Amino acid sequence: MDNKDIDVVVTEVGLRDGLQSLETFFPTEGKIDWMRAEFAAGMREIEVTSLVPPKLVPQFVDAQQVVEAAHQVEGLTIVALAPNMKGAERAFELGVHKVNYVLSVSRTHNLKNVRREREESVADFARIVEAARARENRPWLVGGLSSALGCSYEGAVPLEDVVRWGVALAEAGADEIMIADTVGHADPTLVRRTFKAVQEAVGPVPVSAHFHDTRGLGLANVVAALETGVRRFEASLGGLGGCQFAPGATGNIVMEDLCFLLESMGLRTGVDIERLVHVREIIARHLPATPLYGGVARAGLPRQYVPAAARGIVQHASNLSTAA
Amino acid sequence: MDNKDIDVVVTEVGLRDGLQSLETFFPTEGKIDWMRAEFAAGMREIEVTSLVPPKLVPQFVDAQQVVEAAHQVEGLTIVALAPNMKGAERAFELGVHKVNYVLSVSRTHNLKNVRREREESVADFARIVEAARARENRPWLVGGLSSALGCSYEGAVPLEDVVRWGVALAEAGADEIMIADTVGHADPTLVRRTFKAVQEAVGPVPVSAHFHDTRGLGLANVVAALETGVRRFEASLGGLGGCQFAPGATGNIVMEDLCFLLESMGLRTGVDIERLVHVREIIARHLPATPLYGGVARAGLPRQYVPAAARGIVQHASNLSTAA
Repeated sequence: MDNKDIDVVVTEVGLRDGLQSLETFFPTEGKIDWMRAEFAAGMREIEVTSLVPPKLVPQFVDAQQVVEAAHQVEGLTIVALAPNMKGAERAFELGVHKVNYVLSVSRTHNLKNVRREREESVADFARIVEAARARENRPWLVGGLSSALGCSYEGAVPLEDVVRWGVALAEAGADEIMIADTVGHADPTLVRRTFKAVQEAVGPVPVSAHFHDTRGLGLANVVAALETGVRRFEASLGGLGGCQFAPGATGNIVMEDLCFLLESMGLRTGVDIERLVHVREIIARHLPATPLYGGVARAGLPRQYVPAAARGIVQHASNLSTAA
Repeated sequence: MDNKDIDVVVTEVGLRDGLQSLETFFPTEGKIDWMRAEFAAGMREIEVTSLVPPKLVPQFVDAQQVVEAAHQVEGLTIVALAPNMKGAERAFELGVHKVNYVLSVSRTHNLKNVRREREESVADFARIVEAARARENRPWLVGGLSSALGCSYEGAVPLEDVVRWGVALAEAGADEIMIADTVGHADPTLVRRTFKAVQEAVGPVPVSAHFHDTRGLGLANVVAALETGVRRFEASLGGLGGCQFAPGATGNIVMEDLCFLLESMGLRTGVDIERLVHVREIIARHLPATPLYGGVARAGLPRQYVPAAARGIVQHASNLSTAA
């Protein structure tokens, strides 16, 4: 999951987070086209599905087919969401490379989302880790902290709770802790404070970020997270992904704009932004009524744009030190 | 122009930068309504017009009426753009409080924009300063550096040129240097590097920022500029303002989202965001076909939102020190 030619790992989550709230079923062939086209544009990690009961979320009834197709794409890190042990077991059987597990720092949200106490969520995750460790070629296990930067039910979330549940997942055996701003409450000051505190508390376990752009602060929050040392970000093409709590709100941060931000800062993502922008056409074909967002798609790349990897001076490492 | 209850000064430029490329004449009464409504929402600085020949830009044929109406709004800092001595003299006669003068760091852009060499622009500015100093109650004079972070004609702009022309304007007597990303080329790394270099070169003269959100990086650039100590930003309501060089490109950064960013970070702007969002209705009424942008207007304020001024702990100063 690490690559010496890449400074920041970006993970496409549109196929999961972008589609999960849609009423429309996105055809399996469309999902596979999308995944392949993004891989061809340089995307190396894609969250391809969610391993939830199809009765609950019919959008992911084709999880097995999609993961099998993903296995045909050599070099792709296949990511899937697993809300519980049952989902994780399916992920193991399907040979998923990276499993995202989620606990809501907000108790109310955890009860509504997975119908259990946070302590039970941690215990379940510990069992998942144990089951994974018993296998050969075990997947990378991500312990996600959702509603970590604000909750639609509880409002502000205490920092000590974020740290506490981050440490609980790390101690249970997470390979990575992901902090998620589930409904776009974060600001750069809160991001700096929260990521620093969690990084200090979980020691060597890498901390990644999942931001939403609900109120336009998504990329500003990325800049703040970069300063704390975060080098893994989730995003979705065209910002696909609504939010059931905030009508009219956009979803994830826009992948094309995220890549443009990073590459402009001299941080290599491995992604060819022009090719990436063209992948939006696949989404638009299947979801003609769904708005897609993004500045790069609207305005094109600027004349002076040079991908980070093509620059003469290797500036990607030193660029950030001034702000750290 | 300073206020102890405000940490960051935001200046509305929609009435000038937002309207200047529009074919449609925005009615004078509408401009006055807009200005008054924004003042009522807490906006204390508004660039109300551009003092250019009406033949060149018919949008500003009503400059005198608009400035006179602005003088009826007690407490408002009236800002106007003056492209040359003639415009500056009109600004002085009209009693404008703050005059924005612009030099393009890119030679090509300066030649196209004001039809003269950069040296001539500096000499003209020096004469404006002299004329201003000869008056009682002279206005605050801003030396703007446009195309300072990239140019549609020349591509990347050398840092030494930005510093050189910034110093030239400061030595000519500018009260403030404004660095403008005229067509949205900047990224946070470039912003940090450029603002730091100019700040060091111009000494005590404050450096302010004017960003465009062409490719989604506007607020990310604000975060970078804040880190270098910038405390004055221009923006426009709803991101109004197209760009003749990039069809489909948005204009300035969105004022509502900028205020939300700053207030969320604990930095007081003096602006009531909910009231500010309602002012968009005035623009929409007069420009029904013009798209307005912005996350806060789309999603509303989050449940946990507390304006910076209403917080128990005074955190606005300390918040930024961690990143500086």
